[in-house]
Amino acid sequence: MILMATHAKRSVCPLACTLDVIGDRWTLLVVRDLFAGKTQFKQFAASPEGIATNILASRLAKLVDAGIAEKSRSADPTGRDGYRLTEKGRSLGPVLQAMAQWGLENIEGTEARIDPGL
Amino acid sequence: MILMATHAKRSVCPLACTLDVIGDRWTLLVVRDLFAGKTQFKQFAASPEGIATNILASRLAKLVDAGIAEKSRSADPTGRDGYRLTEKGRSLGPVLQAMAQWGLENIEGTEARIDPGL
Repeated sequence: MILMATHAKRSVCPLACTLDVIGDRWTLLVVRDLFAGKTQFKQFAASPEGIATNILASRLAKLVDAGIAEKSRSADPTGRDGYRLTEKGRSLGPVLQAMAQWGLENIEGTEARIDPGL
Repeated sequence: MILMATHAKRSVCPLACTLDVIGDRWTLLVVRDLFAGKTQFKQFAASPEGIATNILASRLAKLVDAGIAEKSRSADPTGRDGYRLTEKGRSLGPVLQAMAQWGLENIEGTEARIDPGL
């Protein structure tokens, strides 16, 4: 599935259009947690960055709307509704990897503790 | 030069720390334009996304503060102060490339018109 634009594009630039989907401080952290195998709202909320629950709820809805994540009962061992990455979501792996690598090389105090299995 | 944290980190995660620097809808578009050889404020302001001048000014200052761009008279052929990428800024190439590639493959209507020379 190709994402359908629900708003007017700023330009045809693929970087600008990608930023319209994931260009904020929180969205890719939820994607990171999905890569790490988290499925439940409370698991995302427990991440060390301390995302506010209203921001988390909006980002999860946005990720589902963009076809990056999907709700799935089978994704969660407790039988509750969980979230998991779609194929489109998994294709964000190189983006996360490039950004994490840049951070490790350029920002003091960062540590590669989590292997999201990219 | 390693970026010194001027604010408390959200976590030691290199992805989170990178998002604190470039995680918004505009910063990487200015970096894109710097890769494309633009040096002057009015050149960045003329890009098709129509960045507001107050946002542009704040993003340029942030990029200089983060050591990603630097002011340089010699960077501009008119002799005015211009901006250019530092080595740290050029090392963002893989991030831009991964995001642009994801956009081309997943967002309808995007076009690879600009070769930023990554």
